[in-house]
Amino acid sequence: MSDWYEEQLEIKNGRAFKIQYKQLLESYRSPFQKIDIYESVPFGKILVHDGVLMLTEFDEPHYHEMIVHPALNVYPEPRNVLVIGGGDGGTLREILKHKEVRTAHLCEIDGDVIRLCKKHFPNLACSFDDPRTEVFTEDGAQFIKKYRDFYNVIIVDSSDPVGPAEVLFRETFYRDMFDALTDDGIVITQSESFLYHRETIGNIVGFSRKIFPLYHYYYTLVPTYPSGLIGFSFCSKKHHPLDDLRPEKIEHLQDLKYYSKEIHNASFALPLAFSRYLENL
Amino acid sequence: MSDWYEEQLEIKNGRAFKIQYKQLLESYRSPFQKIDIYESVPFGKILVHDGVLMLTEFDEPHYHEMIVHPALNVYPEPRNVLVIGGGDGGTLREILKHKEVRTAHLCEIDGDVIRLCKKHFPNLACSFDDPRTEVFTEDGAQFIKKYRDFYNVIIVDSSDPVGPAEVLFRETFYRDMFDALTDDGIVITQSESFLYHRETIGNIVGFSRKIFPLYHYYYTLVPTYPSGLIGFSFCSKKHHPLDDLRPEKIEHLQDLKYYSKEIHNASFALPLAFSRYLENL
Repeated sequence: MSDWYEEQLEIKNGRAFKIQYKQLLESYRSPFQKIDIYESVPFGKILVHDGVLMLTEFDEPHYHEMIVHPALNVYPEPRNVLVIGGGDGGTLREILKHKEVRTAHLCEIDGDVIRLCKKHFPNLACSFDDPRTEVFTEDGAQFIKKYRDFYNVIIVDSSDPVGPAEVLFRETFYRDMFDALTDDGIVITQSESFLYHRETIGNIVGFSRKIFPLYHYYYTLVPTYPSGLIGFSFCSKKHHPLDDLRPEKIEHLQDLKYYSKEIHNASFALPLAFSRYLENL
Repeated sequence: MSDWYEEQLEIKNGRAFKIQYKQLLESYRSPFQKIDIYESVPFGKILVHDGVLMLTEFDEPHYHEMIVHPALNVYPEPRNVLVIGGGDGGTLREILKHKEVRTAHLCEIDGDVIRLCKKHFPNLACSFDDPRTEVFTEDGAQFIKKYRDFYNVIIVDSSDPVGPAEVLFRETFYRDMFDALTDDGIVITQSESFLYHRETIGNIVGFSRKIFPLYHYYYTLVPTYPSGLIGFSFCSKKHHPLDDLRPEKIEHLQDLKYYSKEIHNASFALPLAFSRYLENL
């Protein structure tokens, strides 16, 4: 048995990232996917779904702070927030740092992810017991159809567009999220890397621009993900991600490791070739 | 024989990046290092020194544009520019896009790197025949001692601080560069990744701040390097990297793939934890 975890999704593209581990802590086949948790040598504990790395303790704040705080510091007073996916709890943890949030729904299709992350990742799964949290173990694409004009912010913290998350990369899902938002709401979606997955992003941008008045792409540094970064779509009915930032809100956020006003602004600056690609779509 | 190249420098840290290749084009042992050039599956041709990836055709513009243009668009009229290292020619190519440059010296210790890059990387090594170029195959740390008050900008395009480049990460070398600069000169040095090499950077920052009135750290995205990025030190006698940017100069630069005014400014914005680390040094 090898003592190296090797990222599977990228091998067909002739790229692979390997991580040495001390111990396989958990290996469980849920109805939706295989869930593996390792104690790694360089990155603390790591979570893997179907052979694809979901997170490491080393760089998870880069991801979770950046999927949450840009939208929640732009939206004036977010009361009702929804996470689709995010069963590890990291996104929920960051949302609940915002005191004005009254209701945080989390809709995760795979309850076993929540169960195992509560056991192995207490620093991530620390907000499931918060009285503002309500958890639904359902299909997010179906769940969202039950709401109209309710959420101020929806965050899609999904895996890649293969397997259970594929439905979360479709135009109909984005339309249903638009309807579930209030009339000035914001949607944030995990949107892959502009260095490796330009076509997937082009597809998302294409239909998002038809649905939402404002579309912007931004990114965060995650060295353990393919290409070392991951991007997000900022789909907004009204609020602009840079012009409408309220920097005074940032001062109230505790325990930040990545996010700041400077990072907020810088994360929307895209390399010239990709910036031109988005302009010419 | 495996058809995967595996990054060697990171393996002892429990991390490894692998790249599939079609063909080993060249394998040559120079007096200084082993030089391998592969035709890779995902990234075009790749250059490897002593088992450590130097560059790929896929992302080399991210590196070469960013080691050059920030300084050359901040310095008002750079006439004399020096590259130490950079035998592949990519840094030279970017320098000579600036029409005001009259003299571009390149001091590379290993002449075989230049010879093999001319053969296999014509898109990088396209500026060695420019009449403004003069090449010296010498030890950069010795070469720099011969100059006083001459260079407007010095760019240290080195490999990592092991092997022949170790001397380029020492305080005495930075002092000699200071003396070789004009009284408003700028030094740029390859300065590793703030995600993985914080101690090395802390050391550079420590002595640079003693020598230069202005020290700033910035970075560029290089997905094929460990952690997906690489940083640079901006050591300056007078000109500020953000306040003194001359954006009108950017319009005259041809064939850019990464660099823009927005990227220039964003690349100095650092994640909060690293920003605090630099403040508290």
